[in-house]
Amino acid sequence: MEKPLILVTNDDGITAPGIRALISVMSELGTVVVVAPDKPQSAMGHAITINNTLYLDKISAENAAITEYSCSGTPVDCVKMAVSEILGQKPDLCVSGINHGSNSSINIIYSGTMSAAVEAGIEGIPAIGFSLQDFDWNADFEPVKPFVKKIASEVLKNGLPDGVLLNVNFPKLKREDIKGIKVSRQAKALWVEKFDKRKTPSGRDYYWLTGEFINQDNGNDTDEWALDNGYISLVPVQFDMTAHHAMQQLNTWKLNE
Amino acid sequence: MEKPLILVTNDDGITAPGIRALISVMSELGTVVVVAPDKPQSAMGHAITINNTLYLDKISAENAAITEYSCSGTPVDCVKMAVSEILGQKPDLCVSGINHGSNSSINIIYSGTMSAAVEAGIEGIPAIGFSLQDFDWNADFEPVKPFVKKIASEVLKNGLPDGVLLNVNFPKLKREDIKGIKVSRQAKALWVEKFDKRKTPSGRDYYWLTGEFINQDNGNDTDEWALDNGYISLVPVQFDMTAHHAMQQLNTWKLNE
Repeated sequence: MEKPLILVTNDDGITAPGIRALISVMSELGTVVVVAPDKPQSAMGHAITINNTLYLDKISAENAAITEYSCSGTPVDCVKMAVSEILGQKPDLCVSGINHGSNSSINIIYSGTMSAAVEAGIEGIPAIGFSLQDFDWNADFEPVKPFVKKIASEVLKNGLPDGVLLNVNFPKLKREDIKGIKVSRQAKALWVEKFDKRKTPSGRDYYWLTGEFINQDNGNDTDEWALDNGYISLVPVQFDMTAHHAMQQLNTWKLNE
Repeated sequence: MEKPLILVTNDDGITAPGIRALISVMSELGTVVVVAPDKPQSAMGHAITINNTLYLDKISAENAAITEYSCSGTPVDCVKMAVSEILGQKPDLCVSGINHGSNSSINIIYSGTMSAAVEAGIEGIPAIGFSLQDFDWNADFEPVKPFVKKIASEVLKNGLPDGVLLNVNFPKLKREDIKGIKVSRQAKALWVEKFDKRKTPSGRDYYWLTGEFINQDNGNDTDEWALDNGYISLVPVQFDMTAHHAMQQLNTWKLNE
């Protein structure tokens, strides 16, 4: 059987330890091609580059086991360029991460890591975003590697439902303290902003965005609950954002009178 | 009765004709505060500014009827700064647009206009994104103004279900050729990329992102169908991206063995 073709990307940039951990696991499962941003692109959401030029540089040696490209664009640009310009075909799997920091609950909306996985999903490629609840550049990815391999293997074996990708988040725990993988739903949560207002040396006001994360969801079936209780959260994600349940109510409005 | 407080933003920048049209309609409905990007921020997705400073400038005169701020950040930054730093309270309504160009179907994922509306929705503010199927800077917004007013009035009157905002798209038609407003679902569609590869004067390859829009959805209940058939599409949007229908299937996987 031919080895599966696996596209690896992220949003922390091609040199991040998290993507190195992901590359090492994926090379046990298939033929790996890496296309990742040349600089950190966290919190970029689903941004694409339309008003600027894009550069793509092959950074691996000709005879290297793994082909790697760095791209000047966003994580979504990386997926688009990989499929269109490098692979010339859809890969069998696209994985993004392992992100330094959680992308659970509402964080999925802001996340560059997840935007790459969502883009792959839109293009019909089975896709998984992986994130670890540890923002540290020197975070320890060793404990989660066996789970990354397990989940990716299951997706390669089973595929994913049409229009669905996975958002996987790991708690910051030792291997033996992780209780297992829990299929979860996205918790209802938000960030409450606290802007840090400062003055430039010349006296102009400027701001840094900071905030406090508020989980508003008491359910024990959410990704936040799973992570808080020692589980790995696995949320199936869709990019059909229609609130189908609200359509009936809106049709009672007198919009055309 | 007190006039409602309405926050207006967009992604084409504070000088765009589309936001001027939106401001003029909203000033008929309530007290308007504008916080919009100081430069175009199209295709920014749900990006936020965390690795850079933010500037906020009041650009309206002290006694102006409408208070306006330009912000150096993304559309999502604008909403966050408006609520936290300018208004100090949630507005009664947040409207974004009118975008120069459609944000129907999958375009919602890439759209800065819609990201602002989604952010307001996350923060519990009734929110609407408006877009016109015309990318021209000199697009004619006059025909759609009565519909903008109607939809915003209905939202001010009825509110919106928890966790739901609206994505409204207008066809490029004369007033008399618009058939009405149709509550729709997001069509399944995607962009197939065609990168335009060029060489810099010094000989380095670079790329422009271009693409072809493919509507894969034959349903006559979608936003694309509505627009193609002379209707205004109104899609209720949610930011719970969980594919709830896929959870049962994933629970049949042997993830913990």
